[in-house]
Amino acid sequence: MKKFAMILAGSGVYDGSEIHEATLSMLAIMQQGGSYQLFAPDVEQHHVINHLTGEEMKEKRNVLVESARIARGEIKSLNDFSVDDFDALLIPGGFGVAKNLCDFASKGADCSVNPQVAEAISAMHEQKKPIGALCIAPVLLSKILGKVTITIGDDESTIDNIERMGSRHLETTHGEVVYDDDHNLFTTPCYMLDANIRQIYQGASALVDAMMKAMK
Amino acid sequence: MKKFAMILAGSGVYDGSEIHEATLSMLAIMQQGGSYQLFAPDVEQHHVINHLTGEEMKEKRNVLVESARIARGEIKSLNDFSVDDFDALLIPGGFGVAKNLCDFASKGADCSVNPQVAEAISAMHEQKKPIGALCIAPVLLSKILGKVTITIGDDESTIDNIERMGSRHLETTHGEVVYDDDHNLFTTPCYMLDANIRQIYQGASALVDAMMKAMK
Repeated sequence: MKKFAMILAGSGVYDGSEIHEATLSMLAIMQQGGSYQLFAPDVEQHHVINHLTGEEMKEKRNVLVESARIARGEIKSLNDFSVDDFDALLIPGGFGVAKNLCDFASKGADCSVNPQVAEAISAMHEQKKPIGALCIAPVLLSKILGKVTITIGDDESTIDNIERMGSRHLETTHGEVVYDDDHNLFTTPCYMLDANIRQIYQGASALVDAMMKAMK
Repeated sequence: MKKFAMILAGSGVYDGSEIHEATLSMLAIMQQGGSYQLFAPDVEQHHVINHLTGEEMKEKRNVLVESARIARGEIKSLNDFSVDDFDALLIPGGFGVAKNLCDFASKGADCSVNPQVAEAISAMHEQKKPIGALCIAPVLLSKILGKVTITIGDDESTIDNIERMGSRHLETTHGEVVYDDDHNLFTTPCYMLDANIRQIYQGASALVDAMMKAMK
């Protein structure tokens, strides 16, 4: 059974992990015979967004504590991540990736990545283990690994920043997965496109399927 | 295309709607050719639970605002629910159902139901439209409608309370749906059993499939 580590960034598209992408990645992994362990950094959220109005709320929330909502409590701090325990790494999207796991949302190509997230990606990459990333999460791979080939769909501003970080971008649509076989990276656009929940399931399933085949 | 109204109770199993049950119900509806509109009552949560530790947090959160996380902002207040706009009603589980939509968690058979939730259930039932409920959500049907046949799986204490409210309970396991054809009600246990996410998808899909067949 292939063991996936998944890194979450909170719970909710505007300030955390996108809930559908996270949930449907977990479903796809189990449906395809794998298992998963969820992780999140034990840090304060960049901010809290009221998902009804889109406005910032005067609150503080913790990324690990809020991620635990998606995980039903079954989640570990990234402090406890060990590369040798896992066959693959998967990172769902959501603005929390670009606000809590790194600061791409405000800094673009000049962003910096949470050290534990960077270390997890680097360690998996050094061991040539497959890394999957949905939606905006591929920008982490671009920042950490540089000369890689990824997709975030077709958003011009994001593509520009990805190219400034030294990576190659391929435009894609729903359910398409870009495989960088030099670096064993798998990316798919999900909600970076105007998508419905069935298309998110299609994208997450295709990504996990491609990662499973690379591990055979 | 059959239009489902779904009622959420927050975002997170311990104080809101169970995220997997809500997300996978939405997926099942779309996969089976339906559409959905999400609703939640615009009320304060009973309390806020830290999903990492299980302990209560000294915070206040709003049920509609937190439900909007699962909905990606596409949600309406139950104030705006109109029975004529929908073919079916679906209510996912999570402790929020028993804490925010009613107070079953503390009062059991003597619980009272949020008036807007009670009105939505009564109105759909009067029009003989199908109502589906997952996990703990069938207790709402028991309290509002009384002499109905439902399942919440096999939890003895909950079954005892359901029988005290005048309903008949049938024990079930993963993916099984109880259909009360006198009242057009569909229930399935999901996380009221010790379940994994694949079994939740199985349950939600089977429930939506049964509801779709009843609308043909």
